[in-house]
Amino acid sequence: MTKKALVIFSGGQDSTTCLLQAINEYGSEHVEAITFVYGQRHDIELRQAEWIAKDLAIKQHVLDISSLGQITNNALMDKDQTINQGDNNHYPNTFVDGRNALFILMAAIYAKSQQISDIILGVCETDFSGYPDCRDIFIKSMNVSINLAMDYTFNLKTPLMYLTKAETWALADQLGYLDYIRQHTHTCYYGVKGGCGKCPSCLLRDKGLQAYLSCK
Amino acid sequence: MTKKALVIFSGGQDSTTCLLQAINEYGSEHVEAITFVYGQRHDIELRQAEWIAKDLAIKQHVLDISSLGQITNNALMDKDQTINQGDNNHYPNTFVDGRNALFILMAAIYAKSQQISDIILGVCETDFSGYPDCRDIFIKSMNVSINLAMDYTFNLKTPLMYLTKAETWALADQLGYLDYIRQHTHTCYYGVKGGCGKCPSCLLRDKGLQAYLSCK
Repeated sequence: MTKKALVIFSGGQDSTTCLLQAINEYGSEHVEAITFVYGQRHDIELRQAEWIAKDLAIKQHVLDISSLGQITNNALMDKDQTINQGDNNHYPNTFVDGRNALFILMAAIYAKSQQISDIILGVCETDFSGYPDCRDIFIKSMNVSINLAMDYTFNLKTPLMYLTKAETWALADQLGYLDYIRQHTHTCYYGVKGGCGKCPSCLLRDKGLQAYLSCK
Repeated sequence: MTKKALVIFSGGQDSTTCLLQAINEYGSEHVEAITFVYGQRHDIELRQAEWIAKDLAIKQHVLDISSLGQITNNALMDKDQTINQGDNNHYPNTFVDGRNALFILMAAIYAKSQQISDIILGVCETDFSGYPDCRDIFIKSMNVSINLAMDYTFNLKTPLMYLTKAETWALADQLGYLDYIRQHTHTCYYGVKGGCGKCPSCLLRDKGLQAYLSCK
């Protein structure tokens, strides 16, 4: 049986790089994407995700889990909050409690219904924002939990886990998609098309790109 | 600080017994209930859950997660399917992939927002329906996963895990609520008020009750 993969896909740099790598590895007809509507501040990333999935001819499932907004509060889902980066004692206020766990769980439920085992996501603990649900130890624990919950052998794959942002740009370049990702992916916390250049997310992305381009 | 608890509450025998035990242990003003709308065949159990929470003066949060119906299919959510009990090679078709994992995760996200650590649920691996997400090993794994995901010390408590149905009836009796649970909780897969007396869920409940009453 041909292996299939499901990519958790937001339309940002990291998940788009994962999607392109999956297409390279599995073939585009064996790759699906799942995108979550969870009450993001901006729908620009959803529109970009839909545009990219269509452009790459990938079957995309968009799932609304915005009831999350009823039970938790944070700056990524609330336009009235100013974004801050946190400090040694606090997470950034863009941290959405349980978000990656929920993405993984919903993706796994869908994957099982499609007889898919491999689930790919673009989390990274190297140049990360300090979120606990981006760490490898969480991903491995969650992998065990979903396997036990559904008596099914899921394989969570995180190809970017130990890459720096510069190395993620290098991977995009190796895949032949450096300019594509620069132009078509969305990362900015403030929803500015092309990036505001100032928010933590834009700064991380730009710094990585400059580091890669200067060593190329 | 006074300990608080959140009970995952469906309005059935098991979760109602857990709710009553929690009220006994924490005091009713320190107990909250969370109930999920996930596309159940019948809304009778939701109505019962709301009635009981009100009757016991417990703060109840009802959360709609029915987007689950877009990604999985089973007899508990689809009225057109006949319920069967499965066999050695198959789970009953009432098994909802990922349901308990989703309940636990959403409950945990809500609990953290309320500074609650203890989350109580009525799963049981003794007289159970064969569902993998009722097993102790899954609960313990999921406990680790949510703690890692949110960097918070949740304590998942499953007081019924190793009780038989007869022992769960005995617990209700000790708490002074045997008749209350007989009269007011809903368990039947077919949504018959008072129980159809024939579905796997009614049979398990009735058998346990008869076993308890005959030894009393």
